[in-house]
Amino acid sequence: MPKSILELATKRKSTRKFSSDPVNLKDVLQALEAATQAPSGANQQPWRFLIIIDPNLRRRVRAACERGEKELYDNVTGEFGEWLFVKGLSWRKPFLEEAPLLVAVLMDESAQYARESVWLAVGFILLALEERGLSTVTYTPSNTDLPLRALDIPKGFKLETILPIGYSAEDKPKEPKFRLEKVAFLNKWGDSIKT
Amino acid sequence: MPKSILELATKRKSTRKFSSDPVNLKDVLQALEAATQAPSGANQQPWRFLIIIDPNLRRRVRAACERGEKELYDNVTGEFGEWLFVKGLSWRKPFLEEAPLLVAVLMDESAQYARESVWLAVGFILLALEERGLSTVTYTPSNTDLPLRALDIPKGFKLETILPIGYSAEDKPKEPKFRLEKVAFLNKWGDSIKT
Repeated sequence: MPKSILELATKRKSTRKFSSDPVNLKDVLQALEAATQAPSGANQQPWRFLIIIDPNLRRRVRAACERGEKELYDNVTGEFGEWLFVKGLSWRKPFLEEAPLLVAVLMDESAQYARESVWLAVGFILLALEERGLSTVTYTPSNTDLPLRALDIPKGFKLETILPIGYSAEDKPKEPKFRLEKVAFLNKWGDSIKT
Repeated sequence: MPKSILELATKRKSTRKFSSDPVNLKDVLQALEAATQAPSGANQQPWRFLIIIDPNLRRRVRAACERGEKELYDNVTGEFGEWLFVKGLSWRKPFLEEAPLLVAVLMDESAQYARESVWLAVGFILLALEERGLSTVTYTPSNTDLPLRALDIPKGFKLETILPIGYSAEDKPKEPKFRLEKVAFLNKWGDSIKT
């Protein structure tokens, strides 16, 4: 029986470790089909999806992304650097090869509210993948130009995120989230919704 | 029985005309709760939600938004202007008063990937509203500063969108969407997914 949106959203967590179990392309296409139904600025539908199964291409994408990450990790400081360290994150992105399938999400830069529209559609994708028992993480490379070139994407499109998709082999719990009362107010900023 | 994500996404369409039927606040809170479960850059959860029920405040928000819209509509040209005209859109935004409830979606500007995270969460909200039979439109005022001031939002937060929420009284069909084959490729840009 299908789960409710709240159940899917609550259960869902980001995954960076994938089992080698193959992914059914149809499941991914259904999730992308849901995304194509999302609203967008002036209905321009600025999203494009490049599904990457070819292992050589996944290796090239990983190498391109890691080149940019190394640069970031060598230079990052402050709160974000601390967060990366605490989370045990590094410039290595093995999940880009370990996940059996990647979806590169591209954005038509010329569209109205392009970024807003693309990410709203990514929200649809995440829930649709969760519904099928598939996991992912919205991985945005520090330097998006390198993988863009590795993938031979035409001018006018930006890489917004790469979704590695597969079955989770990760045992980390979900990141803790603020309670609704902390982020939602009624009529006046700061006024409790009193649930 | 709950619908699948693809069914919800396909059925969902943006609404700018609302019936006067009241909205159950609990339904809206559940949709926002789903949003709080979304992933975000460095888990910073940059979203804040101001639920507006008070009619005087909705009137003020409408007036603030329309002031900015008039400016835009007086000056817009080209493809976007044509689109607005064809769609019969104007600077008037009665739905901001007619919908029994508004959710102003605010963004903590200081967060990593703030805009991306907020809009992904908006995707969760849209599906959760659709699941409860509620309609909305992701309305982003041309000038977001005017309603921000009308709502007395503290510094450091931007207004990303206002969601008027209610039961649809609109009979327009859904905007047509590109077929998946047009926007999704396999391994190489332009290569058909052959569904």
